[in-house]
Amino acid sequence: IVDNDPLDDPPLDFAATESFLRQAMTMILEDAVCEWHPPEELKELLDLELRDGGESEARILELCRDAIRYSVKPTHPHFFNQLFAGLEPYSLVASFITEALKPSLYTYEVSPVFTLMENAVLKKLIQTVGWEEGGDGLFNAGGSMSNMYAMNLARYRHFPEIKELGNSAAPRLAVFTSQECHYSISKAAALMGIGTKNVFVVPSDKRGKMIPSALEEQIKSVKSEGGVPFIVNATAGTTVLGAFDPIDEIADICEKYKLWLHVDACWGGAVLMSNKHKLLMKGIHRVDSVAWNPHKMLMACLQCSAFLVRDKTRLLQRCHSARASYLFQQDKFYNLSYDTGDKSVQCSRKPDAFKFWLMWKALGASELEQRVDRALAMARYLADEITKREGFRLLMEVAPVVKERMMKKGSMMVGYQPHRGQANFFRMVVISPQVSRQDMDFVLDEIHSLGKDL
Amino acid sequence: IVDNDPLDDPPLDFAATESFLRQAMTMILEDAVCEWHPPEELKELLDLELRDGGESEARILELCRDAIRYSVKPTHPHFFNQLFAGLEPYSLVASFITEALKPSLYTYEVSPVFTLMENAVLKKLIQTVGWEEGGDGLFNAGGSMSNMYAMNLARYRHFPEIKELGNSAAPRLAVFTSQECHYSISKAAALMGIGTKNVFVVPSDKRGKMIPSALEEQIKSVKSEGGVPFIVNATAGTTVLGAFDPIDEIADICEKYKLWLHVDACWGGAVLMSNKHKLLMKGIHRVDSVAWNPHKMLMACLQCSAFLVRDKTRLLQRCHSARASYLFQQDKFYNLSYDTGDKSVQCSRKPDAFKFWLMWKALGASELEQRVDRALAMARYLADEITKREGFRLLMEVAPVVKERMMKKGSMMVGYQPHRGQANFFRMVVISPQVSRQDMDFVLDEIHSLGKDL
Repeated sequence: IVDNDPLDDPPLDFAATESFLRQAMTMILEDAVCEWHPPEELKELLDLELRDGGESEARILELCRDAIRYSVKPTHPHFFNQLFAGLEPYSLVASFITEALKPSLYTYEVSPVFTLMENAVLKKLIQTVGWEEGGDGLFNAGGSMSNMYAMNLARYRHFPEIKELGNSAAPRLAVFTSQECHYSISKAAALMGIGTKNVFVVPSDKRGKMIPSALEEQIKSVKSEGGVPFIVNATAGTTVLGAFDPIDEIADICEKYKLWLHVDACWGGAVLMSNKHKLLMKGIHRVDSVAWNPHKMLMACLQCSAFLVRDKTRLLQRCHSARASYLFQQDKFYNLSYDTGDKSVQCSRKPDAFKFWLMWKALGASELEQRVDRALAMARYLADEITKREGFRLLMEVAPVVKERMMKKGSMMVGYQPHRGQANFFRMVVISPQVSRQDMDFVLDEIHSLGKDL
Repeated sequence: IVDNDPLDDPPLDFAATESFLRQAMTMILEDAVCEWHPPEELKELLDLELRDGGESEARILELCRDAIRYSVKPTHPHFFNQLFAGLEPYSLVASFITEALKPSLYTYEVSPVFTLMENAVLKKLIQTVGWEEGGDGLFNAGGSMSNMYAMNLARYRHFPEIKELGNSAAPRLAVFTSQECHYSISKAAALMGIGTKNVFVVPSDKRGKMIPSALEEQIKSVKSEGGVPFIVNATAGTTVLGAFDPIDEIADICEKYKLWLHVDACWGGAVLMSNKHKLLMKGIHRVDSVAWNPHKMLMACLQCSAFLVRDKTRLLQRCHSARASYLFQQDKFYNLSYDTGDKSVQCSRKPDAFKFWLMWKALGASELEQRVDRALAMARYLADEITKREGFRLLMEVAPVVKERMMKKGSMMVGYQPHRGQANFFRMVVISPQVSRQDMDFVLDEIHSLGKDL
């Protein structure tokens, strides 16, 4: 039927590629140090062009090797640049299984196992948050999406007609969040037709925590100008300073003004695993929704982002549903509440909960708790050491130069940023149990060494 | 510093877990047939509960084995249930590499290799679409997100002030799409504050193609009622019937009324790889944006979803940017145009382009073309066989029962749905080169066998 391509035999024999997979696997597991090159140089080193003809298996393995060699390794113990780091082997195996099986979480029929696992993880996280009557939720492609979902549910609860009629049929809605919040709040307001100018930025104290009295003042002020407050976003673990907004006090205000309270705990949610530190999120059981990324401090593979909602009236489903008849047939032979696809704005959705489920199974809550405690203790150690070392405040002003040198040397990665008009400073993110006290000392020595002539 | 947990040594020794990874890998590569169980029964079979204590490595491998055993395998040759199927080994290796390296695509600094690879793939796809002056784009967490991006860019181009002020400061915007379009258009309109009632559904002909004259009538009618049309979504490869809207004729109308033309080619985009079939998308070089998922007919691992935009004025960046100072520092030591993070609504973003890049490298455009041609020829063979077999029209009315029987037997998976008030019918999705003519015959025999007593 097609020239030179009979339909009778499958042209792809998977068994024959098994040895290729095994070789590639060996390579992935080899340790390698990052080798920095600027874009134009790296383009020369990588053979990027896509051609008409294919290449040999040996050549493909070379290309894989190059991709690994020249990549930055967030899995390396000296990577402190982002709010994720390290490599959790159980979670990695779960990632590999999901990549190989290609499940997608719209219907129970297509993903029976991962639907049930997602339910099990959500149930456990909801218990950990402390919602005694349960709740609902799903895993999203990142915390930005979870924060947006919170905003959409809050809008839907206040003004269900907006789903059909749009914001042009509604008053000017107002969002409240602290000046230290993640930028996804602003991105969500832009995308959702709420508008970035309707995101009201509440001042934080010098430690980075939202000031509740300032929040109440702003709510009053916006209302007096005709705006309609509908959601407050509190942050548990801010991106730059790692501050925890005072949830309990903010919840009092939200109750008073009948506002949805969402907590962006993408980074800080992990402290809920720790009896020693969970007081940082006192009041979390009172909030309406939580975004929590186990791919950050709990080290699940990217991405693993839970969105939790306290509502028990199928709000998530009602807000997001489109009821596609080809996918969500109503004459199925099993309980349709297991078809979770219409709770999501995505269509295909990956079973990211499995990555966390498997590592929890292997480690248990007790080991997760110890890891959180250890990471916080490590950060404390580093802070103490810095106060002991001369020259470290001064160094802040030369951060971009030190950063360039550390990248080119490839020795480690630490992010820097200015903050509220002050000079650039290095932000150390300490997560992984692969990191030891010696690594903390290495970081300080290395920053000193890279910047001592400046 | 923490009780019983010295900071001096890393508690996680990755090398020690290597044997675990290798064992798991062996298991993933084993073939296994789906074993169907209803939710309550499967809950009993899986040990879902998350506990305080961890479990042994042997037990974790057992759990992995169960997860694989009871999962549906979209990779099996007899899976025809979704618009993706089969397993592409090169793409799978790329998936494994990205899972193991944990890259995220906001800055060049963190993902130098994958930033350049994404650029290379986008460039090639843009050439394939036929935009001679180039364009822009990125890979998203699914086609629904790409369709939403198109809608947001179109809105931003027409009314840039909505980003700051929201839709309540704007007129009632109107979206046009065919009655056969994907449900993500409606979901995007709901989330974006445009409203599902402002999505105007244009009639399709009996083959499922949008009727251009009906589109123009609707545009006129909406304008006369005070609505403001701003985007038309055409579909290349509709979800249920696989129809291609007539892009060239729709482009004429969009030019006349100055509307953004987006093509949802998530499913059908693959025909652009085929000289024989690309005429199905005649006029694609004239459109403003395209969503194209190589994870569907081109078999890249999930997810691999390209969003392409013809604009050359940094519209994607301007529309979505939030300019977070901690991530997108302006005093960096390399060309900042390689920091793509602010083009996205996501924060962490996976390097999905790599999965397609590596398989293209291995196979070449010529092999990709042959696969597309073969899949379309296979579908033609099946259609011809059906007309020859007695009883196949009648069977439509018993689709739910046949479906239940095929799931419980675990022999194959084919989706069914009603269409425009007609009875349920089976939708065969033919993609993978693992599938042969014998499999087509098997499907017909099996449907006959499962339903012959009905």
